[in-house]
Amino acid sequence: MTTTWITRRRWLAALGAAFSLAACAPMPGTPAADPLPSWNEGPAKQRIVDFVEAVGTEGGKDYVAPAERIAVFDNDGTLWLEYPMYTQVLFVFDRIKALAPQHPEWKDKEPFKSVIAGDIRAAMAGGEKALIELVLAAQAGSTGEFAAVVNDWMTKAQNPRFKRGYDSLTYQPMQELLRYLRANGFSTYISSGGSVEFMRPFTERVYGIPPEQVVGTRQKLLYEVKDPQGVLVMQPQIEHVNDGAGKPVGIEVLIGRRPIAAFGNSDGDLAMLQYTTTGPGLRLGMIVHHDDAVREHAYDRESPVGKLDKGLDQYRSAGWTLISMKNDWKTIFAPAP
Amino acid sequence: MTTTWITRRRWLAALGAAFSLAACAPMPGTPAADPLPSWNEGPAKQRIVDFVEAVGTEGGKDYVAPAERIAVFDNDGTLWLEYPMYTQVLFVFDRIKALAPQHPEWKDKEPFKSVIAGDIRAAMAGGEKALIELVLAAQAGSTGEFAAVVNDWMTKAQNPRFKRGYDSLTYQPMQELLRYLRANGFSTYISSGGSVEFMRPFTERVYGIPPEQVVGTRQKLLYEVKDPQGVLVMQPQIEHVNDGAGKPVGIEVLIGRRPIAAFGNSDGDLAMLQYTTTGPGLRLGMIVHHDDAVREHAYDRESPVGKLDKGLDQYRSAGWTLISMKNDWKTIFAPAP
Repeated sequence: MTTTWITRRRWLAALGAAFSLAACAPMPGTPAADPLPSWNEGPAKQRIVDFVEAVGTEGGKDYVAPAERIAVFDNDGTLWLEYPMYTQVLFVFDRIKALAPQHPEWKDKEPFKSVIAGDIRAAMAGGEKALIELVLAAQAGSTGEFAAVVNDWMTKAQNPRFKRGYDSLTYQPMQELLRYLRANGFSTYISSGGSVEFMRPFTERVYGIPPEQVVGTRQKLLYEVKDPQGVLVMQPQIEHVNDGAGKPVGIEVLIGRRPIAAFGNSDGDLAMLQYTTTGPGLRLGMIVHHDDAVREHAYDRESPVGKLDKGLDQYRSAGWTLISMKNDWKTIFAPAP
Repeated sequence: MTTTWITRRRWLAALGAAFSLAACAPMPGTPAADPLPSWNEGPAKQRIVDFVEAVGTEGGKDYVAPAERIAVFDNDGTLWLEYPMYTQVLFVFDRIKALAPQHPEWKDKEPFKSVIAGDIRAAMAGGEKALIELVLAAQAGSTGEFAAVVNDWMTKAQNPRFKRGYDSLTYQPMQELLRYLRANGFSTYISSGGSVEFMRPFTERVYGIPPEQVVGTRQKLLYEVKDPQGVLVMQPQIEHVNDGAGKPVGIEVLIGRRPIAAFGNSDGDLAMLQYTTTGPGLRLGMIVHHDDAVREHAYDRESPVGKLDKGLDQYRSAGWTLISMKNDWKTIFAPAP
């Protein structure tokens, strides 16, 4: 039943927004399939379903035209695992090790020296500055060359606790939510602090989100002709940080519309949630709360990764809904491929 | 017949790319309607039709999946009138005059003084630096406020020669081309030197191109809370110039894919054309040549506006096709609304 339903939804999403509402209407006498089978009944699930039905009801007071049904999702900790370390950072560490033979000078230079020695704690002692230095050293070349590097890493790297590739450690309830929204005429965008050139190689395969719907942190690009082909070359300079107040900016640059729904999990998502939910009409803001130490991890106010502190203070007054991974989700991860 | 055809095409475009090819097949015994009725038969029209059929033929050697059928269009001089002065510059001049009472200091300060006096030649004597100063003074406020200013101007401003609003001075053959491409599964993007915040308020209405498919020159944006609403405020700083080598960069930031077709009219479009047509597989690059002094304007190598010089030298060896407005187009402008 579940398999049939997913297949049908995917097909509906492919059909396009304008026709999906009519097509989704259950056949007379047939009970409607649950679009969110991995969600427990409760206020979080109910709020999602109520919102989608309200904005999709033509003639209703909360109706929103399909073109304006923009939903934005943080990636790390909202759509996939981020703890105890962001996946892109793990990629960067591995990439530095792979590039080390071409950079003998790194042997005596921090933070490279510690990364090569496998001492992550020491490497991170340099804080954000050290991390940016590592990212810019690891992420270079033309966009096409870099995409190949990312894809190659994804097929090889394994998470030690869950014994799976990182791109299979996405949250099944959020995958269902993405498909449910698309089947109801929404466009689903990622707006993540991660690098856009790191995410775009896999977002379509992993989430059904094409490259043109991915907003992220950007390095400066230069157009160069590497005869005979014109290519875009990643420069060692961060041009846009897609975090905090940078998220609404990144969204405007790519989309040019204010979203009507936003999903995040950390304080870095609060500006995006605020921008989304302070627009006119019905809005939806939700925060994934990592409170399941058994099936995933439990962390919030004190965590250096995915810190959720102000968000816990503000969500009620802002009208946002907390999603408890422990209580609202029947399963955590999408099935292994 | 034409009206019916356009309506049917629009409907097909709404149905979505994946299904349009099958649906477009003419009924047995019914001659296919001409998708480009304002184009004279000739090499330009033939090249377009051949290209669209080749990339759309499943199983054919040049087949391209609909998601990769990205076409990019310059705006000024390619989709609408740009001569003798870019429409956005005319807007900026009018806006400076409207704002002048709030800026008494402009009375004695160039280039503002000359703009207020209506002496465009003197105002432009300061070159690009003066123009950028005017643009940044004219284009401010939140993105929503600025969109309202643009929309208001569009309803009032009139082109003195053609006695029409500027947003009705679009080229009918290019409007047909946009619809033809979308009906065949293409996404049609604008990539213009104009400001993205200037174009987005009208591109959907005028071209059927939604804001998320508009690439342009960008001012820096800051996210601010103007209680109770979060807004994006345009800053007096150019962040990205979408011209020349900036066009491939702007395309990558928004789309993250290499287009397969590009249309321009000036040397500022050559990098975009080169980036597009040096990718693998079948590609299409075309240049609109303004050679019709009777119905529009004739200008190329010597023109300060829409200069086409290197493009005329390079188009043959690059494999691009020139579109002669005089010979290839039956009509120039779209019907007045």
